[in-house]
Amino acid sequence: MHKIHVQVSDPYTVTVGFQLLENLEFPRNTALIYDSNIPQETLDRLKDRVSLLIPLPAGEACKNFTVLAEVLSRLAAANFTRDSLVVALGGGATSDLAGYVAASYLRGVRFINLPTTLLGMVDASVGGKTGINLPEGKNLVGAFWQPQSVYADLSTLQSLPPQVFKEGMAELFKHHLLDRDAPVSKFYELEDLHSEVFAAELARSIQVKAHIVSIDPHEKHERAFLNFGHTLAHALEAVSKHQISHGEAVAYGMHYAAHLSRNLGGADLTPRTLDFLKWMNPAPLPNRDFAVLHSFMSRDKKADSEGIRFTLLKDHGEPYLARVPLQVQQDSFQEFLQDL
Amino acid sequence: MHKIHVQVSDPYTVTVGFQLLENLEFPRNTALIYDSNIPQETLDRLKDRVSLLIPLPAGEACKNFTVLAEVLSRLAAANFTRDSLVVALGGGATSDLAGYVAASYLRGVRFINLPTTLLGMVDASVGGKTGINLPEGKNLVGAFWQPQSVYADLSTLQSLPPQVFKEGMAELFKHHLLDRDAPVSKFYELEDLHSEVFAAELARSIQVKAHIVSIDPHEKHERAFLNFGHTLAHALEAVSKHQISHGEAVAYGMHYAAHLSRNLGGADLTPRTLDFLKWMNPAPLPNRDFAVLHSFMSRDKKADSEGIRFTLLKDHGEPYLARVPLQVQQDSFQEFLQDL
Repeated sequence: MHKIHVQVSDPYTVTVGFQLLENLEFPRNTALIYDSNIPQETLDRLKDRVSLLIPLPAGEACKNFTVLAEVLSRLAAANFTRDSLVVALGGGATSDLAGYVAASYLRGVRFINLPTTLLGMVDASVGGKTGINLPEGKNLVGAFWQPQSVYADLSTLQSLPPQVFKEGMAELFKHHLLDRDAPVSKFYELEDLHSEVFAAELARSIQVKAHIVSIDPHEKHERAFLNFGHTLAHALEAVSKHQISHGEAVAYGMHYAAHLSRNLGGADLTPRTLDFLKWMNPAPLPNRDFAVLHSFMSRDKKADSEGIRFTLLKDHGEPYLARVPLQVQQDSFQEFLQDL
Repeated sequence: MHKIHVQVSDPYTVTVGFQLLENLEFPRNTALIYDSNIPQETLDRLKDRVSLLIPLPAGEACKNFTVLAEVLSRLAAANFTRDSLVVALGGGATSDLAGYVAASYLRGVRFINLPTTLLGMVDASVGGKTGINLPEGKNLVGAFWQPQSVYADLSTLQSLPPQVFKEGMAELFKHHLLDRDAPVSKFYELEDLHSEVFAAELARSIQVKAHIVSIDPHEKHERAFLNFGHTLAHALEAVSKHQISHGEAVAYGMHYAAHLSRNLGGADLTPRTLDFLKWMNPAPLPNRDFAVLHSFMSRDKKADSEGIRFTLLKDHGEPYLARVPLQVQQDSFQEFLQDL
């Protein structure tokens, strides 16, 4: 069992291990908000210990105002008071919605997150970002709301299809690149992803994010380092209307960002990002037109009124933020395309 | 001109005075969210200095998910970035909605509040409470989001109907009762409510709230003192489906709380609360059945799973919180009814 301490204003712990769900105890007013696609056996491990069960449409389909309003009304109709607890069981979309419910109901109640996907464990479990989508774009509405605790029970991953597993691997690889002390390894080629070796790798990856988030809980500066690869990724997701998965989009985005980094004088990390991209074996690039993708990148919520800031790497473990000349963005994009 | 400093984590200033709106300067990405009922001349004092004008349905009709989602989409469609500013112009409902928009858009952008009602100035301008209603109840959804600054321009009050003015007076009276240093006075009988004398009284009242909020920004303890009179008031509003105004409901609620306070051994403040109630001359009590009102009080969001906590007064300026035996609640309610 690994414990990662997240040093935000109300510190909390992420516990990584096996068979954790069985040992949780909940207060009287507890709502379990879960992805309706999770296996019944996972739900059975918890359902008798909570007072309200609220299933959500699977995946991103829950992240809208209609579902948000319905779930909040369920809590109100059950007379949930300020000492209530909201528990999320599912992937990143589930915890985004359930966390936003916890942040919003009576202006904030307690929240515990039980991620059941690798992406949910490595990314959504730390950082306190919660929220929903607008027709105009993803994650445009939300709140920073820290959980009281997170339990990443690796036994819930065993039922995941390999494609969903890969999703999370892109974030693990990103944290690996951001981690100055990490030995260069192709950990993603590990065969047994439910082993103690993998649990340790996952805990290490969560620690990278926990460290950055504790320095910068509200994304004023350092936290943007976690955006490595995400500027192009969000554009690819938007242009494809989310037909491409987040993990695949990030794998493309990291390779593009590695080209940008090298062209601005950084070390050449493109062989490593390309190797990872090949391992991911993503769906084809949904759009190859730089002008189109650039217009989407400019609308990214990480942009400010002076334009896009990219997260780049001077070298492994040395992230920085930069505005990149348009010509360099274009040239790097052509190099990126030639690698595919 | 009076300045009240609110010592929350990001401190800000409430400025009380005349002709303040003319001197405000806004950044490029500024949305002015305003009550569509405010006079055109008030809007004209600001509208050429902002990039986006968003009218809201008047009053509480704006505090729902439909309006919230529409306004957020307007900001997104205009490509508003994280360095944007949301400005509220209107009463408490306008600033509740606009403040919640600011709290939610991109997980939080800057917010300036320009209250144009007495209630908005004395109550909604300090405390950072923002939010909307659910079909199940008022203010059940929201966030704590502090403004960057508040300008209470008394010249905007001149167009207010007397009834709306009275609305705010109930909160002024409440702050007066909570203020140990306030001389006992019937300030509400002041004739010229646009005078410097009144401006000073208003500033003093805002200071009472600012002090309590700075001790307890997230309503863990002391802030509940501001709830004096509000437990019954919320029940009266709910049972009447908001046909009774908040100010009238609070005037009733304070008189009931004064009875409770005396019956639990406190000083007898009922002559003062009754005098104020008579000055308010409210609409008739919407319901006289204690059992009905009690069931609404138990659902108040200030209740926790152990029941209702009332804010009571040992004496002028000495608030405390207490759970009150049901028999005392009933007996006090009968005494309260006899005074009407």
